[in-house]
Amino acid sequence: MRLKLASFCLFTIIFILVCGGLAVAQATDPLPSWNDGQTKQSILRFVEKVTTSGSPDFVPVADRIATFDNDGTLWSEQPMYFQLFFALDRVKILAPQHPEWKDKEPFASLLKGDVKAALSGGEKAILEIVMATHAGMTTTEFEKIVKDWIATSKHPKTGRRYTEMVFQPMLELLSYLRANDFKTFIVSGGGIEFMRPWTEAVYGIPPEQVVGSSIQTRFEMRADGPVLVRLPKINFIDDKEGKPVGINTHIGRRPIAAFGNSDGDLQMLQWATAGDGERFALLVHHTDADREWAYDRKSHIGTLDKALDKANANGWTVVNMKKDWKAIFPDR
Amino acid sequence: MRLKLASFCLFTIIFILVCGGLAVAQATDPLPSWNDGQTKQSILRFVEKVTTSGSPDFVPVADRIATFDNDGTLWSEQPMYFQLFFALDRVKILAPQHPEWKDKEPFASLLKGDVKAALSGGEKAILEIVMATHAGMTTTEFEKIVKDWIATSKHPKTGRRYTEMVFQPMLELLSYLRANDFKTFIVSGGGIEFMRPWTEAVYGIPPEQVVGSSIQTRFEMRADGPVLVRLPKINFIDDKEGKPVGINTHIGRRPIAAFGNSDGDLQMLQWATAGDGERFALLVHHTDADREWAYDRKSHIGTLDKALDKANANGWTVVNMKKDWKAIFPDR
Repeated sequence: MRLKLASFCLFTIIFILVCGGLAVAQATDPLPSWNDGQTKQSILRFVEKVTTSGSPDFVPVADRIATFDNDGTLWSEQPMYFQLFFALDRVKILAPQHPEWKDKEPFASLLKGDVKAALSGGEKAILEIVMATHAGMTTTEFEKIVKDWIATSKHPKTGRRYTEMVFQPMLELLSYLRANDFKTFIVSGGGIEFMRPWTEAVYGIPPEQVVGSSIQTRFEMRADGPVLVRLPKINFIDDKEGKPVGINTHIGRRPIAAFGNSDGDLQMLQWATAGDGERFALLVHHTDADREWAYDRKSHIGTLDKALDKANANGWTVVNMKKDWKAIFPDR
Repeated sequence: MRLKLASFCLFTIIFILVCGGLAVAQATDPLPSWNDGQTKQSILRFVEKVTTSGSPDFVPVADRIATFDNDGTLWSEQPMYFQLFFALDRVKILAPQHPEWKDKEPFASLLKGDVKAALSGGEKAILEIVMATHAGMTTTEFEKIVKDWIATSKHPKTGRRYTEMVFQPMLELLSYLRANDFKTFIVSGGGIEFMRPWTEAVYGIPPEQVVGSSIQTRFEMRADGPVLVRLPKINFIDDKEGKPVGINTHIGRRPIAAFGNSDGDLQMLQWATAGDGERFALLVHHTDADREWAYDRKSHIGTLDKALDKANANGWTVVNMKKDWKAIFPDR
């Protein structure tokens, strides 16, 4: 009897240990939407190296800076940058105040619904659309416009809200890095004031950790108080060579890890990996035409060509979206 | 006997409670270098209001943003901005590489030791001195130059290192705010890259929380890796109307508390106090010619004129340095 009881206890203890162990292992996978493989392992290995105190690769908390591109890295960017959808929606709303747009490109084509013709004017056309829709109001007014749009608009192909087209694996990666005392920043070619109204809720990244392109603002003292007026004049383009410049201006330290998806991120990854000690660079390669989009070297949006060659040459981590990601978007 | 023992115990308990209470009160004065009075009370009252959960004035942690001017607010600025001492020292070091400076103002006067004559050229002269001394090297090189200078140079009047001329009461205030989950930022007219190399060690403010004036930088891929080159071209002047602009660019939220000492801070204080809910604005009035300097409306450096009128009109807190501060500089 005593033996039986002992056996029973022993069995129970082993059972608890085994099941408990499994449960813990499952509960503590910090990247559950990442399939096992080299990509996931490279992330886990890097974080373990720089956070293990006493390790030669240990990095103090203050220097654990990670920078993320947004379009194509944290959320989708096809068939065009989501901020451009925003601008086009604004053109329609503002058209009654601009009768002259009926005969003026790129607005005339836009208002006829011919986006392709409107954008055939290239960068100049895009700049005109952006200035007409992003300037001329106060920063407070613009914030409200963005908040309203992002809360109500839906992507034409997926029918999802744009903030539901963020990448679930990248949300997990952001959380995982922050759980390991990284400070996570966005460093995007997109508009800084277009991102800030929602990045904290969606990514857990507060406004002061968002770096982006910007137009100039002017302080004005009005009868009912001070305002910042958004001017139709470029202040800073946070893309390509601009990304290390933006990082230096806003962060003032070199990231030890950088995440992107296109040639626009190449210089950021070069800048991050050129620092001393252990470094990490990752590119998201869009390879999943079924669940998201598949594009790289020939794409006009999110061109991934030179940066892909550099990634291969330098041993940077390249995410094969189709193979590495168990899920793309968050469950709704 | 039993009664005596009880009395003794009671006495002991009361003694412990009273002494312990006093000790705690002393140990927990978060602003020991501030004399008791209205100024100190206004700070304590504000922080208590916005941090007491359930209070109508409660502010969530994420919105507890406090911005501090640097020159004259966190450290001294007389007889001229410390960054100008740095620039003048650099002129002397660089002179052998610039034989033409012997006949060219403002450098000629500087090299003869006549600072007043050199600066008589006004803003243009200062700009020339700054560009000649702050541009033409990489950001990494400039950081080292600043670190070396700040570690070795001494103020001509006090003989202290410049970082020993920070204000002890303001160091306590920074710590007190951070202990109450404020995020503390510098928003200074001084050079952002001149401050960042030492603000973390001296003020506990990391590089990414420093906003300042800047020159442009350019990304270059060199044989031994990427660099950012500092160019002799103004990027942003973070002063007066520029301060709310800089705050918006770097922080993207409106501070609930702002601290300055001159007319250059007026717009920052107006911007901070114009937001909803409980707000706090403070000006340091330099009134102590014995322990520091006394100056305000007529001073060329740190002019405090319009902002002082606004402070009185708006009920902002004005520090009377002589009366409110028990100590000025930290003990050495």
